[in-house]
Parts: sequence; structure tokens; C-alpha cells
Amino acid sequence: MALVVQKYGGSSVGDARSVKRVAKRIAEAKRAGNDVVVVVSAMGDTTDELLDLAQQITPLPPQRELDILLTAGERISMSLLAMAITNLGVKAKSYTGQQAGVITDAVHGRARIVDVVPHRIRETLNKGQVAIVAGFQGVTQGTNDVTTLGRGGSDTTAVALAAGLGADVCEIYTDVDGVFTADPRIVPAARKIDRVSYEEMLELAACGAKVLALRSVEYARRYGVPVHVRSSFSAHDGTRVLAAEEKSKENAMEAPIISGVAHDRSESKITVIGVPDVPGMAARIFEVVAGAGANIDMIVQNVSAAATGLTDISFTLPDGDGPATMAALTAVQGELAFDSLQFDDQIGKLSLVGAGMKSHPGVSARLFGALRDAGINIEMISTSEIRISVVTRADSLDDAVRAVHTAFELDGVDGEAVVYAGTGR
Amino acid sequence: MALVVQKYGGSSVGDARSVKRVAKRIAEAKRAGNDVVVVVSAMGDTTDELLDLAQQITPLPPQRELDILLTAGERISMSLLAMAITNLGVKAKSYTGQQAGVITDAVHGRARIVDVVPHRIRETLNKGQVAIVAGFQGVTQGTNDVTTLGRGGSDTTAVALAAGLGADVCEIYTDVDGVFTADPRIVPAARKIDRVSYEEMLELAACGAKVLALRSVEYARRYGVPVHVRSSFSAHDGTRVLAAEEKSKENAMEAPIISGVAHDRSESKITVIGVPDVPGMAARIFEVVAGAGANIDMIVQNVSAAATGLTDISFTLPDGDGPATMAALTAVQGELAFDSLQFDDQIGKLSLVGAGMKSHPGVSARLFGALRDAGINIEMISTSEIRISVVTRADSLDDAVRAVHTAFELDGVDGEAVVYAGTGR
Repeated sequence: MALVVQKYGGSSVGDARSVKRVAKRIAEAKRAGNDVVVVVSAMGDTTDELLDLAQQITPLPPQRELDILLTAGERISMSLLAMAITNLGVKAKSYTGQQAGVITDAVHGRARIVDVVPHRIRETLNKGQVAIVAGFQGVTQGTNDVTTLGRGGSDTTAVALAAGLGADVCEIYTDVDGVFTADPRIVPAARKIDRVSYEEMLELAACGAKVLALRSVEYARRYGVPVHVRSSFSAHDGTRVLAAEEKSKENAMEAPIISGVAHDRSESKITVIGVPDVPGMAARIFEVVAGAGANIDMIVQNVSAAATGLTDISFTLPDGDGPATMAALTAVQGELAFDSLQFDDQIGKLSLVGAGMKSHPGVSARLFGALRDAGINIEMISTSEIRISVVTRADSLDDAVRAVHTAFELDGVDGEAVVYAGTGR
Repeated sequence: MALVVQKYGGSSVGDARSVKRVAKRIAEAKRAGNDVVVVVSAMGDTTDELLDLAQQITPLPPQRELDILLTAGERISMSLLAMAITNLGVKAKSYTGQQAGVITDAVHGRARIVDVVPHRIRETLNKGQVAIVAGFQGVTQGTNDVTTLGRGGSDTTAVALAAGLGADVCEIYTDVDGVFTADPRIVPAARKIDRVSYEEMLELAACGAKVLALRSVEYARRYGVPVHVRSSFSAHDGTRVLAAEEKSKENAMEAPIISGVAHDRSESKITVIGVPDVPGMAARIFEVVAGAGANIDMIVQNVSAAATGLTDISFTLPDGDGPATMAALTAVQGELAFDSLQFDDQIGKLSLVGAGMKSHPGVSARLFGALRDAGINIEMISTSEIRISVVTRADSLDDAVRAVHTAFELDGVDGEAVVYAGTGR
């Protein structure tokens, strides 16, 4: 008998019919002899509809109130799911984040889980019942205020509960078969990968793969929670995310180094032109950017032109952070004495992810060669131990993903490969 | 500076626009120097929509889950209202029943408030902020489970909070101007009454007046909470519900004894025909009825016909309790040896309410005379210290209300008078 945490997203519980279908699946897992904990998101578009209601009231709703509003969504889905399971003859009870013991800090809108105290969930399991838990939400310790965890928060709830309960596996149900070597909508030859390490999955999630939220992967890695990404429409195995040692243990042959190709269209590029090339200038610029609340991704600084003593600094950041950052930089133009600012939201980022990439020479050469042969210009480059990312024009990104996927022989062959990288744009 | 608890029902916060309108009213009360606590119901038809969703899942949802589901409604309205008030420059925070310290028993679906511990509400007031509280809901003490209070629960929340906080007044906002001498839709000459005692209001609410929930009046009476029923669309005074002593104190002249005429179309009548007239038979019948969960209102037993030794017993009960009660009685027909059962949902009940009715002879004679003159047949009669109720055919009820309203000189004259008795049928 295993202890299984299952997570179902909003598209899996879009209407009463889908709720009943998911309930059937949960009842089967229970009847197969497992202890089952289910984390569920709000139904379909509920969260967006609630956000829209808030916008009708005020353009800048207080975050505390917005959090209370949004958590109504999971309240609805979790209770309906508990009813549907009970209706199949399996006892089930639903719990809010607070009731399930999901304790967070007080940063409304993107709270972090600081502790999980799942007494009531354990009690429910001990009684032989299924426990349904609202994803995406928690409660602050002292003040008992309701918080939300931000985008992908339900994945994080599921992994955190799995860690807190010592679950055997955390199953993330989605509408695709697992993690793919690339977004199948862009690369029809993309393949589902069977195993991926936490580290590779982290890079993939950070680089635009949407199938698992980045923070949930971080959490899974820290606590060693085995994650299984799979389809809610089939019984097939999906993708298992696990420790690198486990991954190589299960894979007797030498693992191919490339896991897959992720892409991301949700970033913009800001270039600060004509920056005096004196010590401390970059630090000052990024102080200002950080003050505007932006999360910077890639940074590139040109070599200073000796004649002028000026340089250009470019960086990428989420589209949404653009306006505030541009305003903050404009405000200090006099102080920092740069020439001008450029804002560009027509960029795309391609990331090649794989273990031990730095120790295998030739990977970057092959990547750049593939892009050159496809006639695609590279605007920025950044690398890590297991990733190379390049920025291209947004309208060249699909071609770039296909070219790289082919160049690394990921098309339709068995083996390891990378991640479904849909960005929803 | 007064401490005011205001309650707004679902129709007052039906959409974003109404929420903003209500917010303005609340902000005004705050700016006028009051401490303001607001209890709010779910927006418009939200509760019915959630009930419908549950019905799509299962015809018999577990009550605990249904309660969690329904409380999503107030979560939405309360957070939107807090946003709207904040947007007007007045600080406001919203609290669930649990956060506001509304402790109930564990009878899901119709829980009773057992304690109110409004620490956080008091803190919020001390900071000079408006506290918004979800109506209709509470939490069980030990298990921290979410409960709902049943129909009219938000009125009860408001009165209970007003009692717990020692508020100066509990204002119940509605879409009519207050409590009327009769339903103005039936009696165009009906007048708003300025003051009514708790006891009279109790009888009126119990007899079909919908403007205030019965349980909230009980609560107000027990804790001496001054209630003010008024329109959310005007600034006029509505109806004040207060202790009988207060009522007569403020009213120097001798108070007319009649408060008003209430009516109710939501009951049915069951007649058990040919019951052996032996001791204990009525007790046994009403044991069975109670076992079916029905709330009995009026009971009439015919005088036994000496020749047969048989009698008939009729009683009224809420329409919804009819089928289960009929089934329960049918099941014991053999044991109790009665002849047959009749079910009649085409009845109406008229109630005349007023202080000291029993000590004023002639009131019932005048009532029966008025009905006789209008050609209306009386099927059942029951009386209390301050009320006379009669059952008529449902289709005669409007005529009966008008006839009695006129006979007691309530039409369009200043003075005391009775309640808006709309039943929604």
C-alpha cells in the first residue's frame, strides 16, 4: 500500500462532468489499496473570472483581499470533488489550505510555504478516507490570514504535502502525457521523456516549460519527493522527475547528455545605451532595477569601446516587469549619465538542457551551428552547468527550436529527451 | 461616536456596481465618525448557482462539503466589498466567519451560533478600519470545520456580532423601507411601521414576514440588540425593533394593540383521518412526524364522534417536509390503524399580531367577522399571547389579508402597524 498525492489542475476539473471523471480516477486509486491525498486547483477559468470581478471594482485591489477572493475558487472545486467521490461510495473530505496545515509567510499573492502540519490529513487517511486539499493557498502563522502561492501554486502545494506526509509519489496530472523533448505544438517529432533529474527539470521549468511550476520542482528537489507528471486522460506512465543518481541508476547505459529544448516568449529585453564604463555602474543600474521589483534573467555587457569609454548593458526580464523598470531607469538617467534606453518585447529564448553539458565540448558549437544553418541570429547567450540559453527574435523562435531539436537528434528516437515547453503565447 | 453593525443582503451586492454603491454608503457611515462592522451575504444568485453545481454532481451532497462549497459565496462578496471601500480611501479588511470568531455547533447546513469571539474585529476597529464579515457562516470549535447557518443566516451573524461587540445598533439593509403593516404587494394601503417589539417581530417573522429571519430576532431579543430594518436605497428611517418597554416608553399615547397582518403560503396541511380516539395516539403520530424531520406548525384535532370512536388530526408543516412525512406516516398506517391520509398544499395562513391581544376581548370576533363578511372560510385556528393565525384556501389568502387589514383600521393611518409579509410565492 502506497501513500499517493495526486494533483489535478483547473482544466481537469473544468465542469461537473470533468469533476466526476476525476473522482472516478481517485476512487480507483483508493480501491487499489492506496492512501490517497488529492490537491485540486480552481475549476477552469474561475480564477480569471474572479480577477476580472476584482478589476471591475478597482484597478489596484489590496493583495490581502485579492487572496481571500481567489481562494474561493479552490473552495468550490474541492468540495464538489469530495461530493463526487463520496457519491461513488468512497468517503472523502475536503480541506482548505489552512485546515490542511499549509503555513506560509505573509507575502500575499506569492506566499512561500514555511511549514506543513498536516495533522487533519493524516487523521483522515487513518480513517481510510480520501483527503482533498485546496491547492494554491495557505495561511499565515500568527495572524491566520489567507494567502495564495502565485502561479503554479497548486503544484507546490502537492509537492509540499507529499514531503510533509512522506508520500511515496506525487502525481501531477495534466492534459499532456508528460514532459516532452520540446513543445509538440512546435516540434511534432518531440517525444515524451521517461525520466528527468530534478536539476534538469529545474532548468527546463525556469526556461519556459510550463508542465511543472519551477517552485514545485525546487521543493521536490530539496525534500527528495519523487514526482510523476502524467495525463489525466490515460493510464500510461508519464515522466518521472527524480534525483540524478536515481535517474542514472535506473538507466544502465550512459545517459545521453541532452534532455531537451525549452522555449519562452514571455520575456522582454531592456538595453541601457552609452553607460559610462566606470566601476560600480552596473551595480547601481541593477540596484535600480531590483528596486522596481523586476526579476532579471540574462545580462549581457558589451566590451567597452576604448575611444568613448562608454558601454551598453542589456538584460531580459518578464514582460510584466517592463514598464515599472523602464520608469525607474528613466528617473535616474541624469544621475547615471547614460545616453538612452531601449525596450524590446519581441524576443524569444531557446534553452538547451542536459546533464554535464559544460564537460562535453562541442555542445555549444553544435547549437550555434544549427542556428546559423537555419539563418537565425543570436542576440544574447547565457550558460549554466546544464543549460545553454540564447535569445533570438520572437518570430524566429519556432524555427530555432525545430533546428536545435533535430541537430541534437531528439526527433522521434527512443532515449532521454526534453521538456514540453509551451508558454501559452 | 457609535458602533454600528450593518448587514447587506445578496440583492444589495448583486454585481460590481452594487458593491461600489454599498461601499459608498459604508464609507459615509465611517466618515460620519462611527465604528463600522459590515456583514455581507453572497452576491445575488451565487448561492443558488453553487447549489445547482452540487446538484449536477450528486442529488445528496454530504452536508459538510455543501457548507464548504456555499461559503465560497460570501468569500467573494466580502473581499470585493473590502476592495471597493479601500478604493474610496477608507481602510477595510474582510474576515471569514472563522476569522471573525463566529463559533457554531456542528450541525452542518443549519448550525447555531454558540459563541462569538470577535478579537480580530475589535482590533480592526481599534485601528480605525472598517471590518467586513462573511455572513451565514461559522466554524466548529474543536474540529475547525466550516458551517453554514441556514436561511437568513446573515441576519443572525449580524445580530450575534452586534451582541458580541456591544454595538449601539444593528442595521439590516434590505430592498424595502422597513417592516410594513402587511405585504404592500397585496395591500397597497399598507404602512411602514416605525417601532415594533421583539415579541411582535418574532410572531411576524414566524408567520411569514420575510424581512427579518426568525432566528436573528430571537437572538436580538435574548441579548437586547437594537435592530433597525431599513432600505439600502434611501437614507430614511426604517423600522426599529426593540424591547416592549422601550417601545411603549417612546410612545406616550396608549399603543394600539394590533401591529400588523402577516401571511404565509409556504406550508402544507396533512390530515390523518379516522384515528382511533385512544390515549397516546396523538403522541405516537407526532413521534413519527418528528422522526421524519418535519417542523410542525399548527395542530387541530376534531372532537371524537362518539358513535365511531374515531377522530381526525390535521397539522401544518413546511411544504418541503411534506413528502418525507407522508411516507413516514404511510409506513405506520397498519400499526396506528387510521383510515387514510390527506395532503393539501393549497393552503394559506394569515396571522394577526399585536401586543396584549388575549387581554382585549373582541379581537378574534372582529377577525372572524371580517373574514365571514369577505366570504372566506376558516379551516384551522391557533392563537398565542400576541397572535391569532387562521388557515384559509391559498387562493383566498390575499383577499383575507386585505379584509383583515381594513377591519383593524390599519389602512394608511399613522400609528403602529404590522409587517411586510412577502413570501416569495
